Parts: sequence; structure tokens; C-alpha cells
Amino acid sequence: MNFLAVVRQLGLVLMILSASMVFPLALEVFPILGEATQSRPALYALCIAMAVGITIGAVGYTFGRGLSIETFTRRDAMLLTALTWVFGAGLAAIPYRAWTAIGGAAGAHPFDSFEASYFEAMSGLTTTGATVLGDIQALPASLLLWRSITHWLGGLGIVVLFVAVLPNIGSGGRKLFFAEAPGPQQQGVRPRIGETARMLWLLYLGLTIAAMLAFWSTGAMGLFDSICHAFSVMSTGGLSTRDASIGHYNSLALDLWTMLFMLLAGVNFAIFYLLLQRRWSILWTDTELRFYLILKLAATTVISLELYGTAIVTTAGHVVQATFGDSLRYAAFQVIALQTGTGFCTADFELWPIASKTFLFSMFLIGGCAGSTAGGIKVIRVWIAIKILGEAIERAYRPAVVRPLRLGNTIVDDDMKLGTLIYTVLFFLLLGVGTGVLVITESSPQCDLLTAASATVSTLCNVGPGFHAVGPTQNYGWFSDPSLIVLSVLMALGRLEIYALLALAWPRFWMRD
Amino acid sequence: MNFLAVVRQLGLVLMILSASMVFPLALEVFPILGEATQSRPALYALCIAMAVGITIGAVGYTFGRGLSIETFTRRDAMLLTALTWVFGAGLAAIPYRAWTAIGGAAGAHPFDSFEASYFEAMSGLTTTGATVLGDIQALPASLLLWRSITHWLGGLGIVVLFVAVLPNIGSGGRKLFFAEAPGPQQQGVRPRIGETARMLWLLYLGLTIAAMLAFWSTGAMGLFDSICHAFSVMSTGGLSTRDASIGHYNSLALDLWTMLFMLLAGVNFAIFYLLLQRRWSILWTDTELRFYLILKLAATTVISLELYGTAIVTTAGHVVQATFGDSLRYAAFQVIALQTGTGFCTADFELWPIASKTFLFSMFLIGGCAGSTAGGIKVIRVWIAIKILGEAIERAYRPAVVRPLRLGNTIVDDDMKLGTLIYTVLFFLLLGVGTGVLVITESSPQCDLLTAASATVSTLCNVGPGFHAVGPTQNYGWFSDPSLIVLSVLMALGRLEIYALLALAWPRFWMRD
Repeated sequence: MNFLAVVRQLGLVLMILSASMVFPLALEVFPILGEATQSRPALYALCIAMAVGITIGAVGYTFGRGLSIETFTRRDAMLLTALTWVFGAGLAAIPYRAWTAIGGAAGAHPFDSFEASYFEAMSGLTTTGATVLGDIQALPASLLLWRSITHWLGGLGIVVLFVAVLPNIGSGGRKLFFAEAPGPQQQGVRPRIGETARMLWLLYLGLTIAAMLAFWSTGAMGLFDSICHAFSVMSTGGLSTRDASIGHYNSLALDLWTMLFMLLAGVNFAIFYLLLQRRWSILWTDTELRFYLILKLAATTVISLELYGTAIVTTAGHVVQATFGDSLRYAAFQVIALQTGTGFCTADFELWPIASKTFLFSMFLIGGCAGSTAGGIKVIRVWIAIKILGEAIERAYRPAVVRPLRLGNTIVDDDMKLGTLIYTVLFFLLLGVGTGVLVITESSPQCDLLTAASATVSTLCNVGPGFHAVGPTQNYGWFSDPSLIVLSVLMALGRLEIYALLALAWPRFWMRD
Repeated sequence: MNFLAVVRQLGLVLMILSASMVFPLALEVFPILGEATQSRPALYALCIAMAVGITIGAVGYTFGRGLSIETFTRRDAMLLTALTWVFGAGLAAIPYRAWTAIGGAAGAHPFDSFEASYFEAMSGLTTTGATVLGDIQALPASLLLWRSITHWLGGLGIVVLFVAVLPNIGSGGRKLFFAEAPGPQQQGVRPRIGETARMLWLLYLGLTIAAMLAFWSTGAMGLFDSICHAFSVMSTGGLSTRDASIGHYNSLALDLWTMLFMLLAGVNFAIFYLLLQRRWSILWTDTELRFYLILKLAATTVISLELYGTAIVTTAGHVVQATFGDSLRYAAFQVIALQTGTGFCTADFELWPIASKTFLFSMFLIGGCAGSTAGGIKVIRVWIAIKILGEAIERAYRPAVVRPLRLGNTIVDDDMKLGTLIYTVLFFLLLGVGTGVLVITESSPQCDLLTAASATVSTLCNVGPGFHAVGPTQNYGWFSDPSLIVLSVLMALGRLEIYALLALAWPRFWMRD
């Protein structure tokens, strides 16, 4: 294990993360966007966080001087990835915690607890979008922007970002890239990984700017909200600047634009990469993309039929007697928002009929496409698993049958099948363990089984809202500090596709070869 | 598909099942065991059921005359297995339903519904032990005996029984045998399957007689109860003749004997077979047996430590201030009873601390050994899955590592690994789907999520009791008729290890080759 090399890169990441605090800081120093909620404590809090981050980062960076990422083994890459998220969230939490410590909030505030601040930061970086805040609008604009920036940085992965902007790319960079975004299939990723990463990063930036302009153009959102929501939407994050999330604006145009960008953010970014190279055929040949769209259509159809004629309560509290158009609008929005793990809300789906909720719940689990910023098991794994299960049922009565499972031009071999199923089993196990641990750590009477189970699913799949006491109009602020740490770990596990974090708990990981 | 040959064998099974009704019938005609609860309606009900079963069975048997089991394909075997359980439960339900139809019960009775009677019969044949009855002791002795007989017949599998007693054994019989009790590993099963089946059957009979004598010798149970409970225990069934289950007798000796026989019933019967051939080494070389005992020890230790000093409420309603001995006694009993899927109860574990309940819940899922009468995922699959997951975590950071997974003298190959994981994923999926369907079909306010989830787990794992409204002192009588059918299907899926029943829902199953 090249500990010092890991420490050096970790230092670099912390410095970059600190440097990115300059944007919210600018908002406090100059009222650039005309926002009136300037706050001295927020200004100081951001300065403290930057100072801490840059100091620690610089020390780490200097300690490992001369040790290049080139020497990285796969274990080093995994260790760095895991530490990046664990310490990155710690650093990103400082502005929140420091803001209340120096009297930013009047009276008691969720950020009075470091665990709660850490949860909020981890929720940002892992693009989960769960919040401990009950009164979001009371936060200074700079901290609201910081929440959205953590989404955006976490979206394509702090490490990918860092691979893309650094010149010293090579096999070490490649290992990092895969440690963070494994997925069963790495199509479209070119041998020159640095170029790919830069390309992805530019794509991501381009789409974010497009989302911002689209949101702004509707007139429903101000520039500041448009920027924050653009960061949230392209990272499939879900933190909003408003208590009622997207439902606050009550604008059909805005809902439609949000749906479009959430849908795009849930697609494998390699597809955009191929489209940029004018390989249009990928649009109708890609199995995962097709299955992704079919799932969305099916769930939207079922749910909007069930909603038709019922009274839909929006997150802003309006009651809509659902015409067919309304039921389609709210159903499609929630299906897309929850399957991609964005977790924006326009309607209080907690009040929806039980079958709709059951469908939404399975959408949580399936998640978006591999190679996107979305969470969950991932569409391609679900597709492979369904095919394997079907084959197994058929082989139960016809043992000699052999049907090679094709995915595009490749045949899914036993290794890939095993990998998919192992991941699925691990995912289910973590859901069970997470729920069990939450039920034990959480003594609050609000934490019934549905709440514990849906909080676990929602954090592990990086969605955000769940059901009951963590429903779309609720928040995570009432959880005890130990439970918030459990939930933070689940978010990190989900974002890093389990292995990078779980391996660290494996005794053999730390042994010499 | 040799439909007529299937119909013929199905007819034979129904006739055998009807013939076995002669034992409860004898109890009504002659008060053999000195039981006072003779009941004319029960007598008539049993006669009706026998008449129906023998008529339908004989018609089916005659229809397929001259078509031998030798011509069976694997699909035929699976179809027969599935139909045996579906129709067998229908036949076994007739005595219950007919008994109330001809006025056996005073006032309203759960058996007034055919679905509830079917549930009780399926629960018997699948050795689940869930009951719709609130007042078990009010049932005539003959019907109590019939419930226990269904357990016993279902225990080693109606079909295995039937393979064992019939002379025309061959490749068709072998297919039947495996369709019903697949398991990942078929060690100890000899090529001459008829001999093996007969041997297993004799073993099963011998252990049942031993259990009966042991129960009777304690003095706590009468002869009738001893017979019924011996049938229940060796099949890991769990239906009792008393409302308070084994807790009714409040006898330490009886608890200990019950634990011993439940423990034995959860062991792979192939191990007894090898022991009869004096191959003692299997006792310390068998991986599954060792892991089975370790799991029991670990769960018992944790739970008895948590129970120590608390007030344990027995199913009979006594409150015990737990000494160390008490906590060990009740913890061990519930761990063994729930892991083997017997589902007998001595204490109301619904009232136990949350961590103990969580442990018990995982014991439900793990279940007993393959090749036993116990339910659940099975110890050997859990062991293989744990090894595979560990290997996968290690391969995440050390991709070149190869550690062949050994099970006894064989190496677990990719096919077996895939099979184990597929089964596990299917199991989890069915749990999710079952819970989702129950939540939708059941409008009763008693059906909260924990109730729905634990009823699903308990029926799919063939355990019996669950938590909350299906807890150890509750019953399934309050479920709506559609929900009872859903639960019956789950019991059959669990007992047939999923495939035999699921394949029938597969369109290709019905296509010509």
C-alpha cells in the first residue's frame, strides 16, 4: 500500500474541494445575483472551512511529495476513493457546522450537530439529496449554493473530475476511474482515459449550462435558483433551494424541462460521448437505454392511470383534482425523479394509492443507467438479472438448453453474470442490514419499519426522499446522531457501488501481498 | 408433455392422500386414544373428502391407464409436482370446509371459507404450520390429527413417499425426486433412487416414532398430543393441538426433547443415511452441518444474553423473570424452532428486544440444511453465498486472485455459484413481490408493513409465525380470502424451492419443443 501517495492525492482533492468554496464565498462578498440573504456568519464559516481544507490538504500533499499516482495499485485506488468521500464529506460539512457555531442561525438548528452537518454534506457529495433541514429557505444563499455545488462535484465523481483536470494521467488514473464508476460494462471508454474523462467533464458542464438556461427561460425560477437546480439536476442530486422542491414553482414548463434533464442525467454518459462522434445508431441499438425508457413508460402509465381522478396534493400544498394531463404530469415527474435518484418532488406521493407507491419503491431500487450519475442497482444489471432468472427457470425443466445472453455485440459470460448477481445480492443484503441497524440505533417512535426500510433504500440508492417519516414533505432531521452516521455510510456505499467502501472493512485488504 | 401420464400419477397421489384419511376417521369411529371430542360432522366431513378424493383420483388414474412414469420428461415431473401440491392441498382442505358446512362448528368459524381451509391444508402439506384458527382446542381430535398427518405426508414430500412405496421406479422416479427436493448438492443419493427413497422414508418413520415415545415419556403430553406433535416436529411443520403451542405444557423435559428433534429434522437426511452406513466421519467433515450448528450457537448466545434478566412471557401467558437458564432455554427453543421452520413457540418473542427479533428474522431466512424438511434459503446456499461475496470483495481490489471454493471434496464451479445466487435473488424478489402484493390485496388495518413482510417471509420460508399481527400468539385468520391464496402460493413456492411452481407461469414451459 502506497500510503503516502494516497495521502498526497487526498490532499490534492481536499484543496480542490476547498478552492470550490470560492463560489459561495463570492456570493457573500459581492451580492452578485442580487440575493438579499447575505450572512456574515456564513462568510466566516466558509473562510474557516477553506482554511482548514487547504491547510490539511497542503500538508498531505507535501507529505507525499514526489510520489506519483503512477505507482498506484488497485488497492491504493480503492483506498483513495473511499477516503476521498469520507474526508471530502467531512470538509464539506464544515461550512454548515461552523455557520451555526458562530451564531448564524437564530435558535436551535439541525446543523448544531456535526453528524447532521456531515449527513447533509455526504448527501450532497453522493448526490442523494436527503436533507436534515425543515426550513430550507432560511439558509443563507451562499450555503444553499454550496449544497448544490457539492452535488455537482460529487456527480461525475470528485475523482473523475480530478483525473480530467490533472495532467499526470496514466494507468493509475485508469484504476481510479474504475474504482469509482465500475458498472458491469465499460463501453465507449477509450484507452486514453484522460481524454475520455475530460470529454465527460465537458459534456457534464455543457448539459448543466443548458439546464440552467432552460430553467431560467421559463420565468418561474430566478437566476440563482436556476443555477442551484441545474447543479442538482445534472448530478441527479435533488437538494433544492425550496422546502417544496420543484413543486414550489408550480410551473408546467419547469416541470417538463426538469423531467428532460433528469432523464438525460440518468443515461449512460458514454452514449452522449458516442453521439458526439456521430454514432447515432447507439440510440436504437443500446439495450440498456431501451430498457430504461420502457421502464419509465410502463411505470408512468400504471401510476397515472391509478392517479386519474384522485386529488393530488402538491408539495406546495395545492390540491389538484387530477385530469388525465395532471395525473400524467405528476406521475411522470415522480417516476423520473425517483428512478434516476434525483429525488425532486412536485407531489406528495406519500398520499398516493398503495399500488403506485409500490411501483415507485421498485423504481428506487432499479435506478438509472450504469455510467450515469444516477443511483440504484442500475438498469443494465436489472436487465441482465432478469435474463439470468428467466434462463434459470427454463433450465429447471430443460437442463440442456443453452441460450447465449447477448448484450449488444458481446456475449454475457459467466463472470459477468456472477458479478451482476453478486452485486444484486450485496445490495439486498445491505438493505436488510441497514434496516436492521437503523431499527436498533433509532429509538425515536417515528422510526417505524417502513420509515427505516425506505430511509435505507433511499440513501443506499442515493434517491433522497422515502416514505412515512422520511416522505416527500418530511426530512431526516429527527434521526439520532448515530442513525445519521449509519445513513451517511449507506449513501457512500451506494455512490461507490459498494465495493470501494466495503473492501476497507475486509481484514485481508490491509494485509501485505 | 405427457398430460395423461401426469394425470394418472396425480390420480394415484390423490387416492393415497384420501386413503390416509382413514387414520383420523378411525379416531371418530373408535375412541381409540380415549379422546372425548368425537364429532359426527367431522366423521361425515372425512367421509366426504375420502369419497371425493378417491373418485377423482380413480378417474384420473384410469384415464392415463398404461402410461407409465418411465416416459416422464423433466417438464412432466415438474408439472406433476406442482399439481400434486396444488390439488393435494385442495383435497386436504375438504375435511375442514365440509366440517363447518354440515354444522360442525357452533357459530361462525374460520373454516367457513374455502380459502381459509385451503390455507390451513397448504400450511399443513408444506410443513409451514401457520394456522387460521384462533381456538385450536375446539377442533375435533380427528381434524387435529388430520392437520398433523398433512404435515407428516408433506414432510418428506408426497412424491418422494410415493416414489418410495411404488415398485415402478426408474429414471422417471429420479426426475420426480429431484423436481421436488433439488438443493444445490445431492450428496449421498444413490443411483438406485427407489432404494434411497425407501431408506429415507424408513428413517423418517423411525425418527417420528422415537419423537413420539420421547414426548410421551415426559408425562407432560398425552399419547394423542405426542403422536400429533411427533408428526409436526419431524416434518418441521409446527401445527400444534394447543393454542399456546409447546408453551402450553410448560415442561423443561418436553422443551428439550422438542429442541433435539427439531434440530435433527433440520439436518440433511443424507447425513443420517451415511451414518447408517457407519460413515461417522461425515459428522465432523460436513461443511453445512458445522455451519448449521455454529449459526444456532451464535444466535442462541446473542439472544439469551439479551433476554437475561428481562421478563419473558410464555405463550401460555406466564411471566418468567429470566435467570440465565431460562433465557438460554427460551432463546434456544425459538432459534431452533424458527430456523428449522418448525415454528413451534414457547415464548412470545414478539415482546423480545428489537435486536433479538432482528436475529430471529434472519434465522427465518437462512432456514435449515438442504435435503431436510426445513424451509428457508438453506444453510448450504447461505454458506456458498457468503464465500462468493467475500471472494468478490477481495477480487475488487486484487482482480487476479483465484481461490477455488471447496465444499467437502468437490470444488464449487461457476454453475453451482450461479445457481446459488440465482436462487437467493429469486428468494429476495419473491419476498419483495409477496409483500407488495399482500399490501395491495389486504385492506385490513392490521396489515402493516411488518405484518405483511413477516407473513411473506414466514410463509415463503415455511416457518409459520411471524411478527405483529401474525406474531406467536396471533393467527392468520383475519386475512382476506385473496390474501390467504397469495400466502398459500408463497408456501407452495417455498416448499418446492420456487422453480417447480414458477416454471408453470413461464409461457415457454407450455410450448412444444
